[in-house]
Amino acid sequence: MKVSIIKIGGNLIEDETVLDQVLTNFAAIEGAKILVHGGGKMATQLSEKLGVKTQMVDGRRITDRETLNIITMVYGGLVNKTIVAKLQANNCNALGLSGADLNTIKSIKRPIKTHDFGFVGDVTEVNSEMFSLLLNNNITPVCCAISHDKNGQLFNTNADTIASEIAVSLANDFEVELYYCFEKKGVLRSIEDENSVITDINTEIYQALVKEHIIADGMLPKLHNCFNALEKKVSKVFIGSVAMLADDNQLKTTITL
Amino acid sequence: MKVSIIKIGGNLIEDETVLDQVLTNFAAIEGAKILVHGGGKMATQLSEKLGVKTQMVDGRRITDRETLNIITMVYGGLVNKTIVAKLQANNCNALGLSGADLNTIKSIKRPIKTHDFGFVGDVTEVNSEMFSLLLNNNITPVCCAISHDKNGQLFNTNADTIASEIAVSLANDFEVELYYCFEKKGVLRSIEDENSVITDINTEIYQALVKEHIIADGMLPKLHNCFNALEKKVSKVFIGSVAMLADDNQLKTTITL
Repeated sequence: MKVSIIKIGGNLIEDETVLDQVLTNFAAIEGAKILVHGGGKMATQLSEKLGVKTQMVDGRRITDRETLNIITMVYGGLVNKTIVAKLQANNCNALGLSGADLNTIKSIKRPIKTHDFGFVGDVTEVNSEMFSLLLNNNITPVCCAISHDKNGQLFNTNADTIASEIAVSLANDFEVELYYCFEKKGVLRSIEDENSVITDINTEIYQALVKEHIIADGMLPKLHNCFNALEKKVSKVFIGSVAMLADDNQLKTTITL
Repeated sequence: MKVSIIKIGGNLIEDETVLDQVLTNFAAIEGAKILVHGGGKMATQLSEKLGVKTQMVDGRRITDRETLNIITMVYGGLVNKTIVAKLQANNCNALGLSGADLNTIKSIKRPIKTHDFGFVGDVTEVNSEMFSLLLNNNITPVCCAISHDKNGQLFNTNADTIASEIAVSLANDFEVELYYCFEKKGVLRSIEDENSVITDINTEIYQALVKEHIIADGMLPKLHNCFNALEKKVSKVFIGSVAMLADDNQLKTTITL
């Protein structure tokens, strides 16, 4: 059985018209599927309204207790339930999950090296048995970027990593395709040119692109997650816009080893 | 198969020590079980912090769009995920649900009579098939007080009613026991005397207690939900403290027809 795992970035969630299109495309995907979402800016906006300071280090949020509560409210509550309700309206039997629900995603607090990221978790285990049970019953998991330690503690967790780790955990039992969707058409050669999509990236091309500083910043960990998935038996990995979900011929970046 | 449905009131959620005890008792219940929770005051507190005015009519919250978002964040996000993580720590395979998740609870907007309650839903349908699937797989649903219309709209919905309607929907296939837990030991004859529990209430006693104004205000709809459940084949209905979950001999109110 084939399973499509789609991660959608924060920019696709903030505008309701965009989100509706994303979810229409997602709901139309045939067969088993899983949606993974973050909700970045919306958490920052709520933090601002509540006077909670957002601290970022290397593009990652430092998560104190108040920030964790905000993330749990925004990712696990508002964004997740809004998506689930919209998918149900599209006749997709969606089920919202944090990593605590059904013990789907276990993690440990990120070890303190140069910085203490607070309540940020690194994934240690995905419960493939529970995901299989859901998929075999035509249920579509909608996963937010929250994990837990099975001792009652929730953790803010990178959504790209969650998508990659779920894909890897299912790759033994399913033919898994992993799609990273964002507001661009793929990995761009030039950030100023929306159509400068690099259509194929393998490890060799990747090394060259990193040297040329064409792949940098947030794209580095994203590609790390892509290669991690491919190394662990995930069949196909793509980076692109949601249009790629509806049309195989759409411009996108295909990642291979 | 027996199913215990436990509704916990807002006062049991706000204090972490109290909540931990509630969830320890809940997790220890043998067999299939469902938890239903609200989160009243926490939503009001967040509304205050965000400068959103809380309007109440007859003890019920008028739910405008901003208030609905707050409720979705607090009930569906913070409270629900906190409870789920704590239950998982107690080795209870909890799964948080809004009514949109798995299309479990469908509702329609409450009709406008004297007041427009906004995004408040009246339950029209419970998806007993999905609840059965979960229970048969040893999964414990944790339901927040949110429903949906299957057209993408979420609704704020009374948690007592959700508990009663879930109980009724499962009564054809399971032996269902319904427990309303709050901070008191049961329905009290005198609000000043914590031990003045009325141990048995049937419809006849109920009529008399209403006449005497001993049953009034919020207790009226709660008892309406109790009788509704009993009329529709729910086996047993109780009102009391969480201690009744751990000890059959605990002082409590037993409701019968």
